[in-house]
Amino acid sequence: MSLFIVGLGPGGPEHRTAAAERAVREADVVIGYGPYVDQCADLLDEQEVVRGTMGEELERAREAVERARSGRVALVSSGDAGVHGMAARTLAMAEGIDVTVVPGVTAALATAAVLGAPLADDWATLSLSDLHLPLETVERRLTGLAMSGIALALYNPRSKTRTEPFDRALAILREHRSGETPVVVATDVAREGESLETTTLAEIDATTVTMRSLVLVAGETAEWAGEWLVALRDRANIKGPGPFMLGEGAT
Amino acid sequence: MSLFIVGLGPGGPEHRTAAAERAVREADVVIGYGPYVDQCADLLDEQEVVRGTMGEELERAREAVERARSGRVALVSSGDAGVHGMAARTLAMAEGIDVTVVPGVTAALATAAVLGAPLADDWATLSLSDLHLPLETVERRLTGLAMSGIALALYNPRSKTRTEPFDRALAILREHRSGETPVVVATDVAREGESLETTTLAEIDATTVTMRSLVLVAGETAEWAGEWLVALRDRANIKGPGPFMLGEGAT
Repeated sequence: MSLFIVGLGPGGPEHRTAAAERAVREADVVIGYGPYVDQCADLLDEQEVVRGTMGEELERAREAVERARSGRVALVSSGDAGVHGMAARTLAMAEGIDVTVVPGVTAALATAAVLGAPLADDWATLSLSDLHLPLETVERRLTGLAMSGIALALYNPRSKTRTEPFDRALAILREHRSGETPVVVATDVAREGESLETTTLAEIDATTVTMRSLVLVAGETAEWAGEWLVALRDRANIKGPGPFMLGEGAT
Repeated sequence: MSLFIVGLGPGGPEHRTAAAERAVREADVVIGYGPYVDQCADLLDEQEVVRGTMGEELERAREAVERARSGRVALVSSGDAGVHGMAARTLAMAEGIDVTVVPGVTAALATAAVLGAPLADDWATLSLSDLHLPLETVERRLTGLAMSGIALALYNPRSKTRTEPFDRALAILREHRSGETPVVVATDVAREGESLETTTLAEIDATTVTMRSLVLVAGETAEWAGEWLVALRDRANIKGPGPFMLGEGAT
């Protein structure tokens, strides 16, 4: 008679919380996109398992809500289910259901930890997907963020067929931020095959960015400290030449 | 001979990851601000414990690095140590030390989960502290973010003596976002005494905001769905009257 919307963290069991594990273990039914169900396979025993497919998020949300009327359901997502995950769509149709959202370590935090502390000063997450939002809105948001000079974690940056938003994003960022701004293309972080491509805003090769990547654009107070990318809020020289323009060398 | 910089999550053990627990259990020395050490008291056994005090972050980082030259150290923070926590300052002085950053559930994610899914569309974290950054830089960043229309999690919003940044922040937000924008003052989330004050950008009472609060300002795609605050990326009517101005009623 209850629904738990569960964030499993970025990859293996090590970055999963106790509350997430408990919600999956104690469920009658575990529902999720196939690879996310696999991510908690070690917690499955007698639960009924419903494996969903990509693109059927709405149907999955509906099924989770329906089944929660007669049992205890865990709807699982990778990362944090409330960050570009299943929580919003599901809650919007869950009137009358007892719902608990269980937070998790989102991909931006897992990526930051592997790199050092690039999100230790202010930062934003931005999805570049124009599936549910017009590209012009994505561009408006990115322009405001680029002007702000804070770090960015770009979710859903690019796929084989959806390449325009990322190209537009690079153009906007290059207008407002130094070409030397550190950029990292992080793919499959905390999973098998983890890869980190270190580059700059001027030199990034867009074709290295896939659907499984998160692109981290350093903020104006971040610098490499040896192997670590570190944002220090009190770093000197963070004021650009004007109220909104950060000129070359400002980072 | 190694240093683990550990995020313990927002409060009790339920939102702590397995990796965080392991790093604390296996440490020779556990170092942290007193209340954060208390937060992992259930994991302490034979470890040496060094309790720090507020305002001595630099000394604490230095001690953690020094002790890591001869033993296994866990430097603990609440939330995620890489988000306005101890990770950056410590990494900046940890050359030659074997360091692992263990990510955690940051306060914004814990707050969002309690409210529903207000960070399910794009969002940013912004610290309003002007201790290490000039207030004019905080204002520049906030202006860009307010223009972008995304959700905001305001960290370190206000203390008894530091009230100006929050007043300035409200003024900037009110210039760019609707007065009806949902705002939640979340204090001690996932801890004893948790309180959630629901209000709007027009009506918020600044005196309800303390050092222990996180202020969540909803993004342009968020609305209340019964008791839940939900950001839906494909919500209609998110385009403001111009490329940067979101007028009244745009949310």
